[in-house]
Amino acid sequence: MKVKNPRTGQYYYEIYPPSAQELKSKTDAMRHAQIAWQNGGIEFRIKALQAWKEVVIEHKEELIDALCMDTGRKWETLLEVDLVASSIDRWSNISSVFFSNTERKTSSIPFLEIEQGLEPYPLVGVISPWNFPLLLSLIDTIPALMAGCTVIVKPSEVTPRFIEVIQKTINQVPDLLNVINYVEGGGEVGSELCKLTDIICFTGSTATGKKVYQAACDNFIPVFLELGGKDAVIVTETADIERATSAILWGSVANAGQSCLSIERIYVQRSIFNQFLSRLVGKANQLNLAYPTMDSGQIGPIISEKQVAIIDHQLEDAFKKGATLKAGVTKCEELGGGFYCRPTVLTNVNHDMKVMTEETFGPILPVMMYSTVEEAITLANGTQYGLSGAVFAGSEEEAMKIARQMKCGAVSINDAALTAVMHEGEKNSFKMSGIGGTRMGPSAIKRFMKQKAYLINSQGVKDPWWFA
Amino acid sequence: MKVKNPRTGQYYYEIYPPSAQELKSKTDAMRHAQIAWQNGGIEFRIKALQAWKEVVIEHKEELIDALCMDTGRKWETLLEVDLVASSIDRWSNISSVFFSNTERKTSSIPFLEIEQGLEPYPLVGVISPWNFPLLLSLIDTIPALMAGCTVIVKPSEVTPRFIEVIQKTINQVPDLLNVINYVEGGGEVGSELCKLTDIICFTGSTATGKKVYQAACDNFIPVFLELGGKDAVIVTETADIERATSAILWGSVANAGQSCLSIERIYVQRSIFNQFLSRLVGKANQLNLAYPTMDSGQIGPIISEKQVAIIDHQLEDAFKKGATLKAGVTKCEELGGGFYCRPTVLTNVNHDMKVMTEETFGPILPVMMYSTVEEAITLANGTQYGLSGAVFAGSEEEAMKIARQMKCGAVSINDAALTAVMHEGEKNSFKMSGIGGTRMGPSAIKRFMKQKAYLINSQGVKDPWWFA
Repeated sequence: MKVKNPRTGQYYYEIYPPSAQELKSKTDAMRHAQIAWQNGGIEFRIKALQAWKEVVIEHKEELIDALCMDTGRKWETLLEVDLVASSIDRWSNISSVFFSNTERKTSSIPFLEIEQGLEPYPLVGVISPWNFPLLLSLIDTIPALMAGCTVIVKPSEVTPRFIEVIQKTINQVPDLLNVINYVEGGGEVGSELCKLTDIICFTGSTATGKKVYQAACDNFIPVFLELGGKDAVIVTETADIERATSAILWGSVANAGQSCLSIERIYVQRSIFNQFLSRLVGKANQLNLAYPTMDSGQIGPIISEKQVAIIDHQLEDAFKKGATLKAGVTKCEELGGGFYCRPTVLTNVNHDMKVMTEETFGPILPVMMYSTVEEAITLANGTQYGLSGAVFAGSEEEAMKIARQMKCGAVSINDAALTAVMHEGEKNSFKMSGIGGTRMGPSAIKRFMKQKAYLINSQGVKDPWWFA
Repeated sequence: MKVKNPRTGQYYYEIYPPSAQELKSKTDAMRHAQIAWQNGGIEFRIKALQAWKEVVIEHKEELIDALCMDTGRKWETLLEVDLVASSIDRWSNISSVFFSNTERKTSSIPFLEIEQGLEPYPLVGVISPWNFPLLLSLIDTIPALMAGCTVIVKPSEVTPRFIEVIQKTINQVPDLLNVINYVEGGGEVGSELCKLTDIICFTGSTATGKKVYQAACDNFIPVFLELGGKDAVIVTETADIERATSAILWGSVANAGQSCLSIERIYVQRSIFNQFLSRLVGKANQLNLAYPTMDSGQIGPIISEKQVAIIDHQLEDAFKKGATLKAGVTKCEELGGGFYCRPTVLTNVNHDMKVMTEETFGPILPVMMYSTVEEAITLANGTQYGLSGAVFAGSEEEAMKIARQMKCGAVSINDAALTAVMHEGEKNSFKMSGIGGTRMGPSAIKRFMKQKAYLINSQGVKDPWWFA
């Protein structure tokens, strides 16, 4: 399976997906290794993952190089690699508590007592996307490992170069042998994993997510899906325009908009609309493409060619229906064989346009005017998605009042896309943005453990109390 | 749709399932009513459910009469009706805490704060079975109502007589108008509900559960499935035989074995096998059928004719493969038009027989000898089910050591089927016994609420911290 370089459009890497037979052997070995991994206890697992963290840090440059080749962009890559260490540290700090609370408790029935146990799913499958190849391959994996599961990870076939490096770091930690394995491959390997694992975590598009849900259903296993978003921001007339425009621009164009939680719709109150637009356009025009070098600017390439077609299609649809270009481009540009999209601000947009209702995954900022807060909330809630959103207002109280009415899992208040930097809040996906428990916050680890109750008759009478 | 009386085999009741159009109107009205139900807050909801409890208590006799006609048995009916009140009281006592913990918290990033919100799924669908028609229609419903959801309940078309009575009690509480609705119907109505609701709770057979999972998948909603069981009990050589035989007999024959968590496999250590068997047979022979009247004995009719065929088929299969009858019958008996099965003890059974690996749902007690504890655990874990189980041993420590190795959601220690009487333990279903979060214990309410994170930049600087 050949892989393109997103900066040159050239094939220059090849992956060799395992056969169904090879996957089966691997997962059998992992199920065997899982017993010791679970029985070792949480402190043993923390120690092993801390050891891995040190190896990852030693190989930081090599990992960055591979990820830069995968994605064609640099500063988001640095962020990704740093997040490995911080994620392992965070889970090292908070995981133990889940395993400490197993004392026996009395119940409402005097001679019955309860003890709660936890039983990890032996083998977790993780299918992760190309937009943050390392970060999103680990966001579910680290808590699953802490829970006592083994994890087999299949990153996207679009960005597979880092796999060899990360697997090399795993191989240097003997306690992780067959506890975590990365595999290369596309949809066929993902489909096989749904047959071989006990639970599936998928991050990616809503269309593929539906297929994964179907595969989980066919195999009667639980599934956690983090899918598309069409995050809205509401800017009220009392908002700090300087602050709002800076935050929204970042929230929309970071990683060239290739983030599920990027801001994709901007609703601005009528009385400040022109002022807001002018500052947003001014700031958008200050940003540059990361071309010809990765250090030339902030906006890297569109990583997947399929995404280029979607962005172009949505822009074309918007212009056909009356949108006005205020900054940026009418379609993606090909530069040196790669595709790029400048931060693009649109006005005269409405919900008949795909750019306002379907996920774009590019640095497009459509700005729509509203009159009343009720109207803004209705618009913000008016898509099939519900991942996250944002509100800017003059006071936190005003912003929170609006945020409480937004149908999505996380709302940034006087800031944008904060879930990108803070993983402590617990949030579910609303509507088509996903299915299953929160992947953030301490509760995320609970997804990987079945609860088991020991119900103990401690009285020791000859006949049980209920036998007449 | 005509319904039979399980004691006479005669059609004598008719239900009128709503059309798809009628269901749609009803659920639209419920979605509208949900807003006030949620916004009223938890104390309002507790008050409304307590008011309902009082009405249910007033109509206790009428409800008991209807349920006795539905199921043909009496003392389990009394238990069911009493559990309505105790369930409402239990959830009234423990629900408030989930709504009190919304204060703002600092995060690891100094100028970011977090507030957690909860958002109920507006409309929950409950599809419940015929073995405990009232109890199992409410076990998910009460916490869902406390969470702020509205709930539409479709009980089994096999036992629908109580629906009219329970709906009448609901109609007497104005605050519950369109907050909880019972509907009559079979699989078609259940299938429609999967299209109209935001989340589905199903209790029933594994075969139908798979179809419900598929319907949830098709409609991209979450699902909670409580399905079949084949609960095993392990009796070690140190066990108190008197106690074990009494408890196991009750755990196997209560409700004529028509309970997902009934004991369906008994593994007894070789050295006490004969003594155990003799006491079990002696006690089994003391029980009588609840025929000709409901007060004639402890063992009521087999409620569903389809189940009669399954029990007979498993018995036939067992005898063909060499099982020995020690007490009871070789097939269900027809008496007065209804079908009954006496407590039936089998030996010389093995895992080639359906009676040892498939759900029976009847008062059948197959007893198998084992030599080592490892062998017993392998046998106990050797089916596709993992609902619950039990262990009897001379000490709690000995029993717990075995229980920890059993792959199921709840284990009764020196007792049997304790989940029937104590709903405080949190447990997940293992293997084909189900999918989704615990329906017992305080966590059960969390299934009905999405978590929502408010991520607040409280610093008030001009530019967000991360804008370079």
